[in-house]
Amino acid sequence: MSGVGGVRPGGRTARTRDAVRRATLAELAEKGFDGLTVEAVAARSGVHKTTVYRRWRNAAGLAADALDLAAEESWPLPDTGTIGGDLRAITALVVAGFADPERGPTARALVAAAVHEPTMGEALHGFLVGRLGQAEAVVERAVARRELPVGTDAGEVVRVAVGGLYYRLFITHEPVDAGQARRAADAAVAAARAGVFVLDRA
Amino acid sequence: MSGVGGVRPGGRTARTRDAVRRATLAELAEKGFDGLTVEAVAARSGVHKTTVYRRWRNAAGLAADALDLAAEESWPLPDTGTIGGDLRAITALVVAGFADPERGPTARALVAAAVHEPTMGEALHGFLVGRLGQAEAVVERAVARRELPVGTDAGEVVRVAVGGLYYRLFITHEPVDAGQARRAADAAVAAARAGVFVLDRA
Repeated sequence: MSGVGGVRPGGRTARTRDAVRRATLAELAEKGFDGLTVEAVAARSGVHKTTVYRRWRNAAGLAADALDLAAEESWPLPDTGTIGGDLRAITALVVAGFADPERGPTARALVAAAVHEPTMGEALHGFLVGRLGQAEAVVERAVARRELPVGTDAGEVVRVAVGGLYYRLFITHEPVDAGQARRAADAAVAAARAGVFVLDRA
Repeated sequence: MSGVGGVRPGGRTARTRDAVRRATLAELAEKGFDGLTVEAVAARSGVHKTTVYRRWRNAAGLAADALDLAAEESWPLPDTGTIGGDLRAITALVVAGFADPERGPTARALVAAAVHEPTMGEALHGFLVGRLGQAEAVVERAVARRELPVGTDAGEVVRVAVGGLYYRLFITHEPVDAGQARRAADAAVAAARAGVFVLDRA
């Protein structure tokens, strides 16, 4: 897509940011957050070290920007026709994403770093609140279909569906399998059907 | 309680360990995990620095041991007569514990550190698996009362009840209130009643 007057909007800047982002993700996958350095990202991306320092400052800034860019990407929302099918597809995606041999290590490193590093924490907050907000559409469609009670809080439903999986992966450090992903989705649906997330309820 | 021959078993060792543990918790509350040092714990506890280095090695060793000691403490399981009442009491305890002005900062620092520090991660795994195991008793009582279906997996029920709260506190960095704690418990109960956690089910 060209911008006004043939100048691609943010062309060179966007290319630099993308190169730095890809180098950051590759470094994270190989070395984890604690091994992430501005020097290595500069060398890998071919962007000058002083530019990287000036714009991203440090490892947390690099990783946070990678998350910000990921937040802008759209992801295909499932539309299976039932809330159970949609939520099962979403929880399966979460589990498969962290288990993926290629993308999993980077994703796990980003989340783990964000738990105790404030800049990263803010970026992950923005990323997840955005993703969860998109996922809320499956709940809203189910309410419109009268599969779930009117007044159901969509945000709470999607958080109950995925929260327990993150809890096992990052807090209790327990393995998570496809069965747990399915039951996490089913639990959110059963609770929503029972009216637990209709917020005016006592 | 005296040991054989009037020698208190591990008397001096136990006192040293307790002094170091209390100093570790106080330092964690004030400075967080990243500010925790062997030197400061030694000074605060009155235990010689070389002893602390030899037995606990570093900040992760100190914090992990504090968690191990906490794991040995018993906590009062609620027994309200209903699974809903019991799980609501447990989720309320979780939220109140992290919000407590005195104990909350230490608890949050321990969990946050454990997400990315392997020694701490193992200690938190042991601590939480132990606590969750104790909490499973409220589900087993409910099954015995026929409040929940026979074959309900107690471990999954308690993890669904508390998992979403940890998810908000440590992963999405969203506020958690008493209403969410109540709904998290209610969601686990509704799902369990619907048979979601009877594991033979497809």
